[in-house]
Amino acid sequence: MLAAGGMDGAHDLGHLRRVWLQAQIIAADEAGVDRAVLQVACFLHDLVNLPKTHPDRNAASVASADAAVAWLASHSFAPEKLASVHHAIAAHSFSARIPAETVEARIVQDADRLEALGAIGIARMFHVAGSTGGALFDPADPMALRRGLDDRAFALDHLQVKLFGLVDTMQTATGRAIAAERADWMASFRTRLLTEIA
Amino acid sequence: MLAAGGMDGAHDLGHLRRVWLQAQIIAADEAGVDRAVLQVACFLHDLVNLPKTHPDRNAASVASADAAVAWLASHSFAPEKLASVHHAIAAHSFSARIPAETVEARIVQDADRLEALGAIGIARMFHVAGSTGGALFDPADPMALRRGLDDRAFALDHLQVKLFGLVDTMQTATGRAIAAERADWMASFRTRLLTEIA
Repeated sequence: MLAAGGMDGAHDLGHLRRVWLQAQIIAADEAGVDRAVLQVACFLHDLVNLPKTHPDRNAASVASADAAVAWLASHSFAPEKLASVHHAIAAHSFSARIPAETVEARIVQDADRLEALGAIGIARMFHVAGSTGGALFDPADPMALRRGLDDRAFALDHLQVKLFGLVDTMQTATGRAIAAERADWMASFRTRLLTEIA
Repeated sequence: MLAAGGMDGAHDLGHLRRVWLQAQIIAADEAGVDRAVLQVACFLHDLVNLPKTHPDRNAASVASADAAVAWLASHSFAPEKLASVHHAIAAHSFSARIPAETVEARIVQDADRLEALGAIGIARMFHVAGSTGGALFDPADPMALRRGLDDRAFALDHLQVKLFGLVDTMQTATGRAIAAERADWMASFRTRLLTEIA
């Protein structure tokens, strides 16, 4: 069940470890964090991982939460913490649109979203385009100045369609600061790319 | 016949235009360049474009040269220049291993290889991995310190397997200078990525 390794080259055990690592960095600046809840939520948040194009994509995080809680309940995890784990996993997903109401949920969401930003975000963006038949960019109009944005057709459009906007969705001060720095760097990557192809 | 658009998101008309643009920049510092030969070689160098995994990949540039010369001959292109065009196209390919013996061949080769370096090189590297089922990197050993390099399995390995080495294959002073700057930038990209995933 653990889980869809290589789907986009990033949803693997390495991704889970990095989310947990990032979560600990963010948690150090937050009060009242239950580390047990945070850790299992980080490692189990992608138990059910559907492709971006799957019609049930926005239900995947709740399905992951259900599966995680069922597994934890059968492995003697503290029953009074199961609701917190469920919420932290269910709320992490961008497409689920479930508000994060606990500090653990806010941290898991931020830690997971940071993987979409920075150099790893750039790597994933082009990797996803390769696996879904998208092009790198629109050679005739890479910045989409004279056309609508279309990140299924052109990977570079994904910066404006989604990734730059992630900064404003961050839930913690530390997460937001890291996200802003990574988004700035992605903008510099785009500037460089545009210069190279100009 | 023009040509395998979207195969790796870069071998499209935009690629041909960029190679021609880059070739003109390089040509400005070279003596005795036949611009007509250079231009048609740039635009026709990928007429036959086979996937990296195709068994006849190393014959594609000669096939492109044959097709280009046949087409030019039937369209009143100066017959005395056909041999130069053929050589410039045939020699551009890394896998063909045909030494570039004319200034036009050296320029086409350099201009084409620059597309594998810099930000566009990074974009293509991850895009190819996505389209061929490779992962972004090896989470357990991203720098391949304790394993052999394997750029089919791990996109990041492609920097060491091929891309960094392209700088030493450049044929012109200008091409080499641009390649070296782009390779340095790719190294800084890798450093940043490794920091993010550490």
